[in-house]
Amino acid sequence: MAEVGDVRKAFRHVGKPVPRVDAPAKVTGRTIYGDDLKLPRMLHVKLVHAPVAHARIKGIDASKALAVPGVEAVITAQDLPPHRYDPDNRTRVLLARDEVLFYGQPVAAVLARDPYTSAYARDLVEVQYEELPPVLDPLEALRPDAPLARGSVQALEEGEVGGHITVEGAEARKEEGPRNVASTITFKRGDVEQGFKEAAAVVEGTWRTPMAHQSYIEPHVIVADYDSTGRLSIWSSTQAPFHVRNEVAKTLGLPETRVRVISTEVGGGFGGKIYLYEALVGALAMTLQRPVKLTMSRKEDMLAATPAPNCIVQLKMGMKADGTLSALKARVIFDTGAFPGAPLLPGCLLIGGFYKCPNLEIEGLEVFTNKVSVGALRAPGAHNVAFALESALDMLARRLELDPMEVRLKNAVEKGDPLPSGQPYPAIGLKECLEAVAKSQLWQRRHEIRAHPNRGVGLAVGGWLGGLQPASATVTLNADGTVNALVGAADITGTNTAFAQIVAEVLNLPLEMVRVTTGDTDSAPYAGMSAGSKVTFTVGRAVKLAAEDAKEQILRIASQRLEAPPEELELVDGVVRVRGREDKQLTFRELGRWSTAFGGRYPPIVGRGAVAPRLQAPSFSAQAVEVEVDPNTGQVQVLSWVVAQDVGFAINPMAVEGQMQGGSTQGLGLALFEEMAYDEQGRLLNPNLLDYRLPTTADVPPIETIIVEVPSEDGPYGARIVGEPSIVPGPAAVANAVADAIGARVFQAPLTPEKILHALGKIKD
Amino acid sequence: MAEVGDVRKAFRHVGKPVPRVDAPAKVTGRTIYGDDLKLPRMLHVKLVHAPVAHARIKGIDASKALAVPGVEAVITAQDLPPHRYDPDNRTRVLLARDEVLFYGQPVAAVLARDPYTSAYARDLVEVQYEELPPVLDPLEALRPDAPLARGSVQALEEGEVGGHITVEGAEARKEEGPRNVASTITFKRGDVEQGFKEAAAVVEGTWRTPMAHQSYIEPHVIVADYDSTGRLSIWSSTQAPFHVRNEVAKTLGLPETRVRVISTEVGGGFGGKIYLYEALVGALAMTLQRPVKLTMSRKEDMLAATPAPNCIVQLKMGMKADGTLSALKARVIFDTGAFPGAPLLPGCLLIGGFYKCPNLEIEGLEVFTNKVSVGALRAPGAHNVAFALESALDMLARRLELDPMEVRLKNAVEKGDPLPSGQPYPAIGLKECLEAVAKSQLWQRRHEIRAHPNRGVGLAVGGWLGGLQPASATVTLNADGTVNALVGAADITGTNTAFAQIVAEVLNLPLEMVRVTTGDTDSAPYAGMSAGSKVTFTVGRAVKLAAEDAKEQILRIASQRLEAPPEELELVDGVVRVRGREDKQLTFRELGRWSTAFGGRYPPIVGRGAVAPRLQAPSFSAQAVEVEVDPNTGQVQVLSWVVAQDVGFAINPMAVEGQMQGGSTQGLGLALFEEMAYDEQGRLLNPNLLDYRLPTTADVPPIETIIVEVPSEDGPYGARIVGEPSIVPGPAAVANAVADAIGARVFQAPLTPEKILHALGKIKD
Repeated sequence: MAEVGDVRKAFRHVGKPVPRVDAPAKVTGRTIYGDDLKLPRMLHVKLVHAPVAHARIKGIDASKALAVPGVEAVITAQDLPPHRYDPDNRTRVLLARDEVLFYGQPVAAVLARDPYTSAYARDLVEVQYEELPPVLDPLEALRPDAPLARGSVQALEEGEVGGHITVEGAEARKEEGPRNVASTITFKRGDVEQGFKEAAAVVEGTWRTPMAHQSYIEPHVIVADYDSTGRLSIWSSTQAPFHVRNEVAKTLGLPETRVRVISTEVGGGFGGKIYLYEALVGALAMTLQRPVKLTMSRKEDMLAATPAPNCIVQLKMGMKADGTLSALKARVIFDTGAFPGAPLLPGCLLIGGFYKCPNLEIEGLEVFTNKVSVGALRAPGAHNVAFALESALDMLARRLELDPMEVRLKNAVEKGDPLPSGQPYPAIGLKECLEAVAKSQLWQRRHEIRAHPNRGVGLAVGGWLGGLQPASATVTLNADGTVNALVGAADITGTNTAFAQIVAEVLNLPLEMVRVTTGDTDSAPYAGMSAGSKVTFTVGRAVKLAAEDAKEQILRIASQRLEAPPEELELVDGVVRVRGREDKQLTFRELGRWSTAFGGRYPPIVGRGAVAPRLQAPSFSAQAVEVEVDPNTGQVQVLSWVVAQDVGFAINPMAVEGQMQGGSTQGLGLALFEEMAYDEQGRLLNPNLLDYRLPTTADVPPIETIIVEVPSEDGPYGARIVGEPSIVPGPAAVANAVADAIGARVFQAPLTPEKILHALGKIKD
Repeated sequence: MAEVGDVRKAFRHVGKPVPRVDAPAKVTGRTIYGDDLKLPRMLHVKLVHAPVAHARIKGIDASKALAVPGVEAVITAQDLPPHRYDPDNRTRVLLARDEVLFYGQPVAAVLARDPYTSAYARDLVEVQYEELPPVLDPLEALRPDAPLARGSVQALEEGEVGGHITVEGAEARKEEGPRNVASTITFKRGDVEQGFKEAAAVVEGTWRTPMAHQSYIEPHVIVADYDSTGRLSIWSSTQAPFHVRNEVAKTLGLPETRVRVISTEVGGGFGGKIYLYEALVGALAMTLQRPVKLTMSRKEDMLAATPAPNCIVQLKMGMKADGTLSALKARVIFDTGAFPGAPLLPGCLLIGGFYKCPNLEIEGLEVFTNKVSVGALRAPGAHNVAFALESALDMLARRLELDPMEVRLKNAVEKGDPLPSGQPYPAIGLKECLEAVAKSQLWQRRHEIRAHPNRGVGLAVGGWLGGLQPASATVTLNADGTVNALVGAADITGTNTAFAQIVAEVLNLPLEMVRVTTGDTDSAPYAGMSAGSKVTFTVGRAVKLAAEDAKEQILRIASQRLEAPPEELELVDGVVRVRGREDKQLTFRELGRWSTAFGGRYPPIVGRGAVAPRLQAPSFSAQAVEVEVDPNTGQVQVLSWVVAQDVGFAINPMAVEGQMQGGSTQGLGLALFEEMAYDEQGRLLNPNLLDYRLPTTADVPPIETIIVEVPSEDGPYGARIVGEPSIVPGPAAVANAVADAIGARVFQAPLTPEKILHALGKIKD
């Protein structure tokens, strides 16, 4: 499994596959989710979603809704308690005030004793709208004569994007300029025009990726309770409990000591469960002095959560005859919908960040339209730009009759190479991933595969820089000698299992003796959000330090009792003993009792770890896919898939493989199926999972996973980020495979049968 | 208010009265208690209580109960999952197996969808009993020809008593001897017979105190959930979450990592909410794979919880003419009911522990009867023995025509004096308490009072050694600069308010910036049980250390940023600044952001404190009461009450006064009203709060509180234990006042009109 992994032989737990402890409950349906929560006197809220994309609100008449038995209140923006309103921040427009900015925007909240009554009454709320012209296409939105999508344009104060990526020397900034621009970014290096002159081949094109939904199985669920002591408790299926606490406190004007956030089981997040309606539900609970639950339906969630943006990449690239990239010029346009928040920075960094290129010019534009505002989806922005970049690279290779693998290996970034921002890469393993795929059976068979008519093999890479955020943890000894670890990060990918492995490794314990708990924001030591692929990389370090601290405390007591210096002691399965002296030992159970019992003589063992990681550990993935295209129907079948990813060190290879398979599957979905479709009035046409097509088991081939391990400088045991990179290459890899199979290229994802037939010239516009 | 309290001027928060943060919710009925908890699929259990005091179970027929719609199961001892059964440990006899040992003992559990159905069906369970002779009176139980109360007699392994008192050199031990003895204790010093010879006066008597219930307003409530991952969660209104975890884990054979205990709001405990039915409810949840709730009714709780024991003290004391005690001989008999657990050790220590006495002989006997087994009630055992000791001392003073105050001051123990076990006292303030009462208006008026017919003034002292148990805490900085503290101790007396004061003091913050949370056993750093009056004394030290640790971390960063050595920095209201340089400062809010934000450069601030206190901080209370007795009805009215208590240092004087008033009120109840009455077959006659009389506001006079502060060596800011001592003197003080008023002494509490008329010779046996 491991390419660079002999170091794991030195370990007992880390590096070994461990099934996730939460898996049996999930697959048997016994996991408790936020929607299972019931509080006494709880009200159920349904939001009134605007049925127009752009309008002025002229009046709201709730009388019919209020007449429904069981309805307790209808709340509009005017009824909310005083709070920090910000027209340019989606989460600080709790309910629309005067202007509706997107189809589905909440304009009122109906609260009733049960959710069916509130849903029924919701439809009886009468809102008078004065319709305004909607702006829907980002390119049209940029035209000087375009209507304005919204009154004001203001840069985002402190967005979620930072959670996914952290760079030095580059910041989203606002500029005067064309219409409807939320923010722009420019990166320049060298002289692109000179670079194109040096090129033996130049390709140019416009690539489009549509708005896609994160499609977590569990829609957003939030419960809020404002108690009689003035404390607001919020249960949310959020990936970011401390972030929610901070934002809710700021928005509602409370100190953080008066807000408690409990992250309930996250039934899928993928970046879409950071922070959205928590302040609204909190404000409703404060207003009504009763607990309030918001459980969104699939439709509501697709209408009014934060999907991933539509993106247009205008890309021109030049390559020398030997396959060296000479110039890259890109214009990256993200449609951010009605509020700022598109992943412009990562998109612009990464389009120039996978390959060495002496001359580049990247311009990024975040454009307002009257569509739902966007959020993160696993490596936000990366798959959009990789779709263009990796397609163009294949086109260049083909033009110059070079091998796509060789071309990538020749140009792939390495340690020290600069990002477009100038920031140099730390140790990375992009080349090692490509080499691993090159050795894979799929890639070795590729000439054989291509001999079949309508079959092709595509290759693409993708990567993600990863987030950095401080983290802390504690590790404590229980009275019976078992060990508890406490963290503040929501476990969305099995990270608590990895933490248990780390603690068991440090203390040399059976894994069963360790329990890891995610606390709420009142009890957990701080950890950043579970986003940016960084949980194991950052919190894992804190857990390791905390376990080492606990070990030191244990050794200090043992040294005193066993009358031996700490360096002569060893820890084995819950026993501290003097090396070579089996008679001189102290058990964790004894120590647990002595540090907890009446009259106990030792302080409780409380290990602490706290870190502020400053060096990223980017991860790359290379993927190859085999497809067969039916030239008559345009149908694409993916036959096989190989994914290599550099994870630094796989603390739990089983979980790492799961991430690689999951990301690849999502990449396949983005390549072939997923697309939020809007009509010409900005109405979402497919707000359900019948019309919005996700990949099913029938679509997904066996996925071969190859774990590559180029140790990171800073991560625990050399681990680096894992979660996000595997989603990135999919759309490009499939497009390259399709081009390889049929000799025609599709520039727009998803690669539907219609688009393929179009590319084959079998249907015309 | 303070006698020795000028030190408090140096402080900003500690030593100042602060209202309890939880008070408004409690008095407005908005506090959430365990019984408010509802879990999906939850079953409600009612226990089948044996209607006989002693019997063999011949058979159980549940068919009629099972036929009731809504009943899901009837569980008997045979149906429970494998567990650690111990016939001599009440908590390890989950349900009676073969032998019923007390009236009310649970023999089966009926589980239904609602509590009314389970209560109805409970009465349909048919249990066949073969009745056995019950043993009810402890003196009769000791006779060689008495029937045995139970098959086996075994010393208690590790009981709750230790939580209330910790001594060196003395342990409850089992002996061969008379019938029905659970354990015995003997302490000897000097030569008592010689001491009696030296005495100018000797008094002798037998004092009786009855079984009393803790009478918490909220009966026991336990909810257990055994989830699909094999984890048992227990919500319990317990004073001792970690103790419950340890005991449940041991009893049900689980590691502590698989048991989580959440202490819900304790609606009164007073020692009676330590640990009782948690393992049973946990076992039921494991058996049925559904959440189970047990909410006891008042009757069930009075029948089958753990009230305070009936006690008989045979005491003989000698005093020299100058008022010096010369000899004390005592036989202390605790009726422990059907299982061991009476407070024999503290009773025997304290009867010889309030006064210097060169010659003493104390024999303690813990006796089995067929009554409900006993538990702790605020300073368990102390009021029983103080009733005898302080009555006898007054009798001696009267006999020798000495002043009761002078006699007490002459003999009162001081630092260095030995307990009966030989253990010397640390710094204590018994004399200071007596001196404080001597100066009180009540005591100064006493000759004036006594001039009224049938009025009298009584004086008594009492004390408690206090528990010792390791404790830990963490103090963390939030993103907005506010501060959280996390502890593991249930807050039953306002201790979290005191902890907030300590944190605010150390960090020099407004109190509003600090939030203290009691975590569950998964998240909280370990703390011993909230019993033994030790929470502020032990956990408070850990909190102080944790705050100091956080302060050090803050100063280290500030020193670096402000380029000034830590000793030149000061903390003021959430700002770190260079002394005298207002321009050079760093706010907690900035530091909070920098240690939590994306790319934050500092590790989260996580202060940690852990202690293993080894030196007790005993607290004494002296109380004087004024009574008027109606010689025709025997009715006693308490007219005024003064209580002085040495608390070392009152961190929150308001809470301390509340404790002193509450304890005095309970002492008044024990003196005049409280008594669990049994018939000759061992059936409790008054299992309700109409027939079991508690003091009401009509009975309680204004209570003057005098806080005495003799600093403890080890407590935070010199604080010592507070909660328990104030209950101890009450019964003796009232008895002494009644004797003072009517010239006749009552040897049996409560001092009912009947007993007073009897003492006056107005009614005969």
